[in-house]
Amino acid sequence: MRTSQNRVMDCLKPCSASYVPLSPISFLEIAASVYSDRVSIIYGDTRYSWRQTHDRCLKLASALSQLEVGSNDVVAAVAPNVPALYELHFGVPMAGAVLCALNTRLDAAMLATLLEQLQAKTIFVDYQFLEAVLQALEIVSFAKTKPLTLVLIPKSDHETSSTAERLPPGSLNYNRLLDLGRADFQIVRPEDECNPISVNYTSGSTGKPKGVVYSHRAAYLNSIAGIFRYDMSKKTVFLWTVDMFRCNGWCLTWAMAALGGTNICTRLVTAKAIFKAISLHKVTHFCGAPALLNFISEAPFEDQLQLDHKVEIIVAGALPPTQVLTKIDKLGFNISHGYGMSEALGPVTVRPWKHDAAAKVELVEGNHNLVMEEIDVKDPVTMASVPPDGKTIGEVMLRGNTMMSGYFNDLKATQKAFKGGWFRTGDLGIRHPDGGYIQLKDRACDAIVSGGEIISTIEVEAVVVGHPMVMEAAVVGKPDDLLGETPCAFVKLKERCSVSSEEIVKFCMKRLPHHMAPKTVIFGNLPVNSTGKVQKFVLREKAKAIGNLAN
Amino acid sequence: MRTSQNRVMDCLKPCSASYVPLSPISFLEIAASVYSDRVSIIYGDTRYSWRQTHDRCLKLASALSQLEVGSNDVVAAVAPNVPALYELHFGVPMAGAVLCALNTRLDAAMLATLLEQLQAKTIFVDYQFLEAVLQALEIVSFAKTKPLTLVLIPKSDHETSSTAERLPPGSLNYNRLLDLGRADFQIVRPEDECNPISVNYTSGSTGKPKGVVYSHRAAYLNSIAGIFRYDMSKKTVFLWTVDMFRCNGWCLTWAMAALGGTNICTRLVTAKAIFKAISLHKVTHFCGAPALLNFISEAPFEDQLQLDHKVEIIVAGALPPTQVLTKIDKLGFNISHGYGMSEALGPVTVRPWKHDAAAKVELVEGNHNLVMEEIDVKDPVTMASVPPDGKTIGEVMLRGNTMMSGYFNDLKATQKAFKGGWFRTGDLGIRHPDGGYIQLKDRACDAIVSGGEIISTIEVEAVVVGHPMVMEAAVVGKPDDLLGETPCAFVKLKERCSVSSEEIVKFCMKRLPHHMAPKTVIFGNLPVNSTGKVQKFVLREKAKAIGNLAN
Repeated sequence: MRTSQNRVMDCLKPCSASYVPLSPISFLEIAASVYSDRVSIIYGDTRYSWRQTHDRCLKLASALSQLEVGSNDVVAAVAPNVPALYELHFGVPMAGAVLCALNTRLDAAMLATLLEQLQAKTIFVDYQFLEAVLQALEIVSFAKTKPLTLVLIPKSDHETSSTAERLPPGSLNYNRLLDLGRADFQIVRPEDECNPISVNYTSGSTGKPKGVVYSHRAAYLNSIAGIFRYDMSKKTVFLWTVDMFRCNGWCLTWAMAALGGTNICTRLVTAKAIFKAISLHKVTHFCGAPALLNFISEAPFEDQLQLDHKVEIIVAGALPPTQVLTKIDKLGFNISHGYGMSEALGPVTVRPWKHDAAAKVELVEGNHNLVMEEIDVKDPVTMASVPPDGKTIGEVMLRGNTMMSGYFNDLKATQKAFKGGWFRTGDLGIRHPDGGYIQLKDRACDAIVSGGEIISTIEVEAVVVGHPMVMEAAVVGKPDDLLGETPCAFVKLKERCSVSSEEIVKFCMKRLPHHMAPKTVIFGNLPVNSTGKVQKFVLREKAKAIGNLAN
Repeated sequence: MRTSQNRVMDCLKPCSASYVPLSPISFLEIAASVYSDRVSIIYGDTRYSWRQTHDRCLKLASALSQLEVGSNDVVAAVAPNVPALYELHFGVPMAGAVLCALNTRLDAAMLATLLEQLQAKTIFVDYQFLEAVLQALEIVSFAKTKPLTLVLIPKSDHETSSTAERLPPGSLNYNRLLDLGRADFQIVRPEDECNPISVNYTSGSTGKPKGVVYSHRAAYLNSIAGIFRYDMSKKTVFLWTVDMFRCNGWCLTWAMAALGGTNICTRLVTAKAIFKAISLHKVTHFCGAPALLNFISEAPFEDQLQLDHKVEIIVAGALPPTQVLTKIDKLGFNISHGYGMSEALGPVTVRPWKHDAAAKVELVEGNHNLVMEEIDVKDPVTMASVPPDGKTIGEVMLRGNTMMSGYFNDLKATQKAFKGGWFRTGDLGIRHPDGGYIQLKDRACDAIVSGGEIISTIEVEAVVVGHPMVMEAAVVGKPDDLLGETPCAFVKLKERCSVSSEEIVKFCMKRLPHHMAPKTVIFGNLPVNSTGKVQKFVLREKAKAIGNLAN
């Protein structure tokens, strides 16, 4: 007997009319048809329409396929935010391949390690970074046994013959390569939307960089979610200040095609370039590391500009001091603060920065978080959610469709990260009673355990930077025979300022429970990685060395 | 030997941290956590927060599951746009079941046919429509052999005991049913995102209504796409003028939860109710059939209101005359015009109406069409795209992830609709050279073939309604021995107007190629279906009868 269940199911087999594997490739195809004449990219004197960008990406895909780059091959790129790197974000997946845009600040040795890991047959390299890549290729072993193609991205979009003599045989010029491509190329769409579209390396602040694999599905959904998250519209003019090699530019490479907005590419991110782009192109959004805010705030007066339209800056990472934020706010910028990581394809949540909120520690609000399924704070052993009591510390965990597929060629690390069916961020947090807001307390590996108490270094740092002479501060645990660890503050003072370590300690004692106040204060510059994150593992080593000296 | 391909694939198996079947259920869960205290629904004196709506839907799901409603069972509902019907949009899928909201204007016989087809064990009925449903249940046969539960939605949200004596044994009151539900119910999420979430019947303007099955995936993606399409934001206050039984309220039932916006429910859609809601609740959006525009334009002066904020009206169907549109535009409303159908989950494309565009025939622009993969005009036999020459007629075809899964229990109709891997809309259109815009020419079944030429009845109608005395017009083919068919115009004149059929014919002759001008003109009211669409099949019968009389 047929039940109603069978009946409903009768007609349900997805077919090509009703099911298309989700992929950001679709965004470019729709943009070419719907927004065909609108400006897609501005880069110096170069301007493309969405139709042109589509056609260039199609030819790129065709040329790659002629080079026998195909299904799931990794194509590496070492380039700044130039149109070629934007085009690779579509052209590589349209050939069925996987894009890995590498950090341009890596040295030859690290580049070699990653290229070896990726087994990238094809490497796109901007002329500025050619030397480092050539050095890296001297080191790698797979390049000697396998045919390898180097594609040089020249300074200008019209140049077809530069520095050819320095390139290994078989190398190509990017613009020449495009000429090889056929305009009638049949796009290789992913058979399964969970297939990889890209690999993004973590900055490796806690160890060696890990290759984070993104799927077409996750990239598609995160692009759409990003439009909400960053309050974007068809009128968005996006200035490329965030590196495209960071989570594929927070997936905004693809999102901009979905919107049919305009990309402003720039080789160099300086305050001058930012202000010029704002006034020339009416930029509406830019984003990146908080260092951007320092750039703008410290720009010479003649470079600064009072804004005549709304400009959104979204930053992810530790915010600079309130004075900096207030100054930028007064220039007319809207600042938002994001929380995220490479594994979650960039910022997961974003919230507007407000004057009155500056004193508070970062809140993770599920704002505009349309596609990430759940954000929770859990006991990492029992996996129970912590009570929303504003004090029980747990680990921030995420799950949802805008999550990485896993780590490149590292099943063990993937399984560890996804243990229990959630992505373990390694961040410690608490839940507040009102609406269950999450407040970050520390990185699990940074927190100090002193006399059995967990001390949030973020909270101590917030107090230290409150001292009027302090520019920046980072707090780590210093080994202590009695208490296990004690807080040790590394402090960078403002220019022409001077203060004793005793005064800093006293200042903190007044404002914090005694066990949380730093017992040691060390003055100097703070070591940062390529993202601008303070390298606490370096400071921990220093604190340990000092401890040993003292003993 | 391991290739790079294996390596990338190593870490790619989706797990519960990185893959969650897409379902609108997620929107309600996120709304309850992120927008917990914001107002979800206003209905008269009743107000709910998103937390409360979530809890009520959860209890509804729990109660349904206690009634043994489960995986893929169809739950039917016959109700106006009251909170209960909104809650059913989440509660039913959260129990794993499939919602079918039926047209409240169906008579008992048609209701019986559809209930029988659906084999719906559980029927929610609003007190206003109880009589029709009770009559329908007298007719159906499956109700006699299977246990059936009728759930009465009373007039007020607090009423728990009304008209109980008229209900069959085993019937329940909606508010009582919610009380049975457990707040700790475990949501039954779809195992596969392509599983059905709802069935929506077509209005059946061309034949008997067909049950269109929507998947969780399509509903989820169309909800998100709708936010762009209708230019919505977190601040959206949505007035329920479109029936929730039409494509699940164009999927805006679910989209409103994704936004955390506010739903204004109303039992009766009148101009007075619309203006009252706008002034009381600062409504930002409402939508539905073009009849809405006539409502507003014809509202008594004392009911009308000069708007002090932006209000978007989106209508889908044949637009009323320019005078009506201009009047509404002057009141301060923004009018947008959508093109779509039940099979595409509602409007596929939406474009703003402009004064100067009123003379043109509807353009299907891919505006905000983020998730529908492709819209094309094709030769229905060869499946080749028509050239963008502004004249070659083809059939408008669609494919993408916001398409129905198929027709309920009708594999043959599904296969016919999806033949060749595209959904065949049955609409005729052409492509324009500029950006390939699509212009609708006619329904394939409405077009007139006269002396071998295809005549677009839409184009003839546009000319006829241009006559200053004409209010509405519909043109159909009248059988003709010589030419096959000739155009026959059915015309409704404006009040206190009078004109001869000869004059209408002459008026058209001046403005159209002679073969396109109507040869016959008949005055009177036009028959419309429940959506307000003119029933051309009725007019064709009339035209045929006249033809026979004449012969």
